[in-house]
Amino acid sequence: MQILEKHACADGTQWVLEHESVTTGTTMRFALFLPESPKSLMVFLSGLTCTEQNVITKGHFQAAATATGTAVLCPDTSPRGEDVPNDDAYDMGQGASFYLDATEAPWSEHFRMRAYIVDELIPLVQRHYDLDGPIGISGHSMGGHGALVLGLSHPDVFNSISAISPIASATRSPWGQKALPMYLGDDVAAHQANDASLLLAEKGWSGPILVDQGLADGFLEEQLKTELLEEAAKSAGVALNVRRHPGYDHSYYFISSVLADHVWFHAAERDNF
Amino acid sequence: MQILEKHACADGTQWVLEHESVTTGTTMRFALFLPESPKSLMVFLSGLTCTEQNVITKGHFQAAATATGTAVLCPDTSPRGEDVPNDDAYDMGQGASFYLDATEAPWSEHFRMRAYIVDELIPLVQRHYDLDGPIGISGHSMGGHGALVLGLSHPDVFNSISAISPIASATRSPWGQKALPMYLGDDVAAHQANDASLLLAEKGWSGPILVDQGLADGFLEEQLKTELLEEAAKSAGVALNVRRHPGYDHSYYFISSVLADHVWFHAAERDNF
Repeated sequence: MQILEKHACADGTQWVLEHESVTTGTTMRFALFLPESPKSLMVFLSGLTCTEQNVITKGHFQAAATATGTAVLCPDTSPRGEDVPNDDAYDMGQGASFYLDATEAPWSEHFRMRAYIVDELIPLVQRHYDLDGPIGISGHSMGGHGALVLGLSHPDVFNSISAISPIASATRSPWGQKALPMYLGDDVAAHQANDASLLLAEKGWSGPILVDQGLADGFLEEQLKTELLEEAAKSAGVALNVRRHPGYDHSYYFISSVLADHVWFHAAERDNF
Repeated sequence: MQILEKHACADGTQWVLEHESVTTGTTMRFALFLPESPKSLMVFLSGLTCTEQNVITKGHFQAAATATGTAVLCPDTSPRGEDVPNDDAYDMGQGASFYLDATEAPWSEHFRMRAYIVDELIPLVQRHYDLDGPIGISGHSMGGHGALVLGLSHPDVFNSISAISPIASATRSPWGQKALPMYLGDDVAAHQANDASLLLAEKGWSGPILVDQGLADGFLEEQLKTELLEEAAKSAGVALNVRRHPGYDHSYYFISSVLADHVWFHAAERDNF
């Protein structure tokens, strides 16, 4: 691992690192916040167009991470590079992986973000920094979708799940309806396996799930559809706590207003483990 | 005033506004954070190259501002525009006003940031938002210099002063040694009137002053020279509290680690008023 940045922050250290990923076949960047004595790891997945930089500069989770002894791992939102396929649109290709393992050309060679995060990056970070303990996963928007899908799909890896303004059902969101066929072809089962609400209804979840959603979020009605996650939780008997916030939009002003609560939520679930 | 942005944030509202300034003769942008029931105003002056955006996205002061009932006013760092003089260097011209009133051509027509902030912007904001009560001033780097100079020069306007990583003595800093002659000509008295340490030694200050400084700050030794402010405080009998932070650099990772403390400091001084 190469160190790109190191900053003291909130009584801990904010690192930006890169490494050669065998899963994506690219150089991958990620950010890692380490309090002095980390007890556990929380993964935060960012939204469309973001890199690892956005949440570490604008998310303001570091003080809560120090207070709770939480290391916070922030992967990039896709593989990147001149040799990596891309798309002119902001919602497809680099910066828009949807955290799945693509099966369609030209994406399938590098766009394997689910396997990268679950099977490569988390074990690497746990081993390198001697971090054991239950793992929480959270994210915003496309990253909220990713947190729910990865968490629900890998209960052996993740102990607790939360999301901020997530795409609640990728198969019923125009963003997902565009990206899923391009990455996964017409394999309907694969689409469904990358839909947070369908997964929640099918698999359930043993613990509580925290979701925050702003009510002045311009994407809420067409793209995010929080109510579909609530319907799924109800049918599966899952304790989903959706907190709706009047006046809040889709920006980092909202993320920074609630992300510390998510750090505390995952720390509480860790301590209840 | 025109509204450019409005975001719910930390139980308050983060505004970005612009207006036609009679002092600078330009359209000026500024940011204003308003908690629900503001009791007082704190001004935050940003550093070289910043706009009003940096501290509102990366400074993480909003939760403390809500908790203390503090409205936080964040001016731009200079007049801007195609018709406004500029310099190719990052430390002169647009984004680098040093918060003074220039007397030398071509700067003197627009670069009147001290008069703009003290005589136009603060009264405008106080009147428009019905904000009375003692005013605090703080800032980072060039803005820390600005906070100290404006605060010490206008004890009738400002009740409390603090600074993060300030340029402690502009006449003994290469940044200031370049900018002061360009903005102010060879008027030595004008240079001295824009030097925080010389002002502090000359005028003193009745209350405490809080300064935070990172010890891994690459500008500390050559540009910032905190010790000069301490010598001045000692000679003037001022209660200057310099907190030195091992490992912290000059970035927003440091600002965001301490800025909430500055909001609380100014609120305490307000409540002691």
